[in-house]
Amino acid sequence: MSTIKEVAKRAGVSVGTVSKVINNIEVKPKTKQAVELAIKELNYQPNVYARGLKVSRTNTVALILPTVWHPFFGELAYNIEKNLRQHEYKMILCNSEGDYLTELSYLTMAKQNQVDGIIAITYSDIEHYVSSNIPLISIDRFFNDEVPYVSSDNFLGGQLAAKHLDEAGCQSLCFIGAGSKKENTTRNRKKGFIDYCEKYQKTYEIFDLIGSQSEFHEKMEQFLLEKIIKEHSIDGIFAVTDAYALEVINFLEKHQISIPDDVQIIGFDGVKSSKHDQIEISTIRQPIEEIAKESVAAIIHLINKETIEKEILLPVHFIQGNTTKRQKDS
Amino acid sequence: MSTIKEVAKRAGVSVGTVSKVINNIEVKPKTKQAVELAIKELNYQPNVYARGLKVSRTNTVALILPTVWHPFFGELAYNIEKNLRQHEYKMILCNSEGDYLTELSYLTMAKQNQVDGIIAITYSDIEHYVSSNIPLISIDRFFNDEVPYVSSDNFLGGQLAAKHLDEAGCQSLCFIGAGSKKENTTRNRKKGFIDYCEKYQKTYEIFDLIGSQSEFHEKMEQFLLEKIIKEHSIDGIFAVTDAYALEVINFLEKHQISIPDDVQIIGFDGVKSSKHDQIEISTIRQPIEEIAKESVAAIIHLINKETIEKEILLPVHFIQGNTTKRQKDS
Repeated sequence: MSTIKEVAKRAGVSVGTVSKVINNIEVKPKTKQAVELAIKELNYQPNVYARGLKVSRTNTVALILPTVWHPFFGELAYNIEKNLRQHEYKMILCNSEGDYLTELSYLTMAKQNQVDGIIAITYSDIEHYVSSNIPLISIDRFFNDEVPYVSSDNFLGGQLAAKHLDEAGCQSLCFIGAGSKKENTTRNRKKGFIDYCEKYQKTYEIFDLIGSQSEFHEKMEQFLLEKIIKEHSIDGIFAVTDAYALEVINFLEKHQISIPDDVQIIGFDGVKSSKHDQIEISTIRQPIEEIAKESVAAIIHLINKETIEKEILLPVHFIQGNTTKRQKDS
Repeated sequence: MSTIKEVAKRAGVSVGTVSKVINNIEVKPKTKQAVELAIKELNYQPNVYARGLKVSRTNTVALILPTVWHPFFGELAYNIEKNLRQHEYKMILCNSEGDYLTELSYLTMAKQNQVDGIIAITYSDIEHYVSSNIPLISIDRFFNDEVPYVSSDNFLGGQLAAKHLDEAGCQSLCFIGAGSKKENTTRNRKKGFIDYCEKYQKTYEIFDLIGSQSEFHEKMEQFLLEKIIKEHSIDGIFAVTDAYALEVINFLEKHQISIPDDVQIIGFDGVKSSKHDQIEISTIRQPIEEIAKESVAAIIHLINKETIEKEILLPVHFIQGNTTKRQKDS
């Protein structure tokens, strides 16, 4: 049986280069061809075990998310697994529940080649541990310029929400949001909303409670009581998520505010708790299928050591529900 | 370095037996101890690669379910992964969507030791492929005496539903169900319901459409129209799932039947679309956490070649929602 030295000699490269090719480490395409040809011609059998140690492709990708027991993450996990399967990858699921040690253990697995790559939705403090030497795709969160991320176009979503409230006849708009400083891509929903209002000179108000979830409900209800129940000075609301939109709706209906007649509301996410579920509130739907598809395509490119875009923004769409008026032209 | 022969000689066993111990194949405890001692004393290093081929513990368990994008399966997958992690197992998730070829591919993985075991919720025709030589735990479905299965105590659930309708003052009860012949454990919900009614001589009716999902809605509405809207001859309904219960509720409310004043309704499942979700209808809740815990414990016993019970039935509980009257004593 021929040796790696003979292969190197025939291909006119160093033994190290042959080893790189065997172990799927990037070399010039021409070099790769030459080595592969030599391997074929000499019928060279690399030491499978040694190779196993180095290459150790597991054909598995780990999906880290807070919990799959949630409509949005459930739909996302479903679609990511579906796409991975089409590429003959298995999906290892990790419900981190935001526990950063659990998340780190998966990063370690990737470093040790126990998984080929990771797709992660995480909001915990792992910035210092993620780096370009781990095949990692981040969804909805920007870590640093080295870590590619896939996200809905939140800015566009904010613009669309304002646009639809405007076209549905709302006179004074309002953004209602809250959240941790970390969800920086989500922040863009507000920016897009403001951008539209400024551009088209719509009067608008911003209610945004950053970092203090606890007092959110009380503060929001005070705000709605003041602005809507008393002053009637708001007739169009864009809530940063469907969950917040539902809270606003419940509160206003308790106070005999009719939706969409008195106040129109648009949420964000458009999650469905199962495939055949109906979306009832008007919302900006995240392109979950596309997020899954693009994340999987990206992680596989990374695993294959191909270069990819660092930021993949996917378009969102308005979905007409029963919390905004249908427009004549639509 | 010492050889396997020397280990065998020192332990006073055959080389084959030593190999078995190295590869975690069951031998008498005493024999195992003797071999392990000999390995220690001789500082014997088995050929790791050969061993890797034979033992091939992956510390992964595959979870096969129709789709994780569903409240019940989402909660189940969340809890199964949580329990597997506590045992240092990773969970590979497969959304089979009932596709029996997809399910078979995972059975093959198990046969080839690409996964250590499988936990499956499947209703497709894979009877002929499951056997005791694959570590497989079936949830909610009985295959054959060789395949252990974990399930809610559906019979008890049926009894509980009838009992609570009875104790809430219902005079004539009714079971409403439908489903394929394969969900045989679910069938027991009806049997338990009938058992209670017979035992306590409650008048009851059965509406059960087996195998013909398509015409279910029409037939059920005809039935409700006849028995409730016209005859008022039913005041307590046990629906075989929450989904059916919701259909019944929507139909009756459309016809100005007040729930629970005119008709009381109990469903089955008690699913929540997320951890913080509220259950609103009265229902028999499946012990999803226990199902997950027991399934994981069982599959790990199987992987370790320990014998386990073939049928693990877990108790269900009634949850008071707003579709039955609160009882004075409760």
